[in-house]
Amino acid sequence: MSQILEEVLNANAAYAADFDKGDLPMPPGRNFAVLTCMDARLDPAKYAGLAEGDAHVIRNAGGRASDDAIRSLVISYKLLGTREWFVIHHTDCGMETFTDEIMRGLLASSLKTASVDASGWHDSGEGPGSAEGNYVDWLTINDNAQSVIEDVKRIRRHPLVPGDIPIYGFIYDVRTGRLVEVAEATRVGAASA
Amino acid sequence: MSQILEEVLNANAAYAADFDKGDLPMPPGRNFAVLTCMDARLDPAKYAGLAEGDAHVIRNAGGRASDDAIRSLVISYKLLGTREWFVIHHTDCGMETFTDEIMRGLLASSLKTASVDASGWHDSGEGPGSAEGNYVDWLTINDNAQSVIEDVKRIRRHPLVPGDIPIYGFIYDVRTGRLVEVAEATRVGAASA
Repeated sequence: MSQILEEVLNANAAYAADFDKGDLPMPPGRNFAVLTCMDARLDPAKYAGLAEGDAHVIRNAGGRASDDAIRSLVISYKLLGTREWFVIHHTDCGMETFTDEIMRGLLASSLKTASVDASGWHDSGEGPGSAEGNYVDWLTINDNAQSVIEDVKRIRRHPLVPGDIPIYGFIYDVRTGRLVEVAEATRVGAASA
Repeated sequence: MSQILEEVLNANAAYAADFDKGDLPMPPGRNFAVLTCMDARLDPAKYAGLAEGDAHVIRNAGGRASDDAIRSLVISYKLLGTREWFVIHHTDCGMETFTDEIMRGLLASSLKTASVDASGWHDSGEGPGSAEGNYVDWLTINDNAQSVIEDVKRIRRHPLVPGDIPIYGFIYDVRTGRLVEVAEATRVGAASA
């Protein structure tokens, strides 16, 4: 067993030993959802004050409003009753450190199959979320206030997103632990509500 | 200001007041990544023993190996050095409670634009992650052990995923707080490594 696997299982055994949250209902108790970055330095439960059962947390590289993040938000609203959403990017994000071109270069030397070129993948179409023939957009970030605004706009304008849901735009500062509002992003919500 | 927004900002101010993690490096200190569900009852930092800075956490509806989750995992490996991955679905998942057909029905009555039908969305092509002309696959789950196996397979076989990375499959039990391994999923990794 790897050291990491052993550590995770030991930590989980300790968590389960004191576990008293077994009766929580499926819908988020505080009726909101957070979309944020996968970055290891971010703990949304800690930085936003979430206990188990409170809120949906969606995370990907950059905290971007990808189709998959919007899939999750629409499910969150329609089936599980969230009524306010936060989009939270952060300072010093890895997504600011590269471009699609750099990623293609990094990947070019390590492709598994000859049918894939360095631009990205050509999905076989099997399994969940297949996107046959699509090239990868890595969703890199130039400016993290701008990316929050763009993503709130993309969510807001999405045909399956309810027009009147509040969407708050924030940047989390990894140096201070503080959430800083991107007022222009939050206003995108208010204006079209 | 909404009550939720006020509560989140107050919780964040308390977190930032005691913040002492401002010097953490960008790459995850423990070199691993977790893909899990957005479910409000799950706190991966708590159930897997993660401190800020330890590991990437990717979350979506179901914890599914969507293209966007794989985008995030590939970035996690290539640019930020993770070398072991966990795929963790859970008991009593909302994704087991509906089907694509049910979702289309729910959405049919609340579409914003006439150009979208109840099957899903036809993206305009603007903004990040656009997938013009795609219908939505909601990535529902019939059996959560099977979905873990499927998703580990999809990641393992992906052309941009390194062949030898360990991928562990687990189900988190929301009643007990315990992680239960899906041995067949973990073996998918071991066999083709």
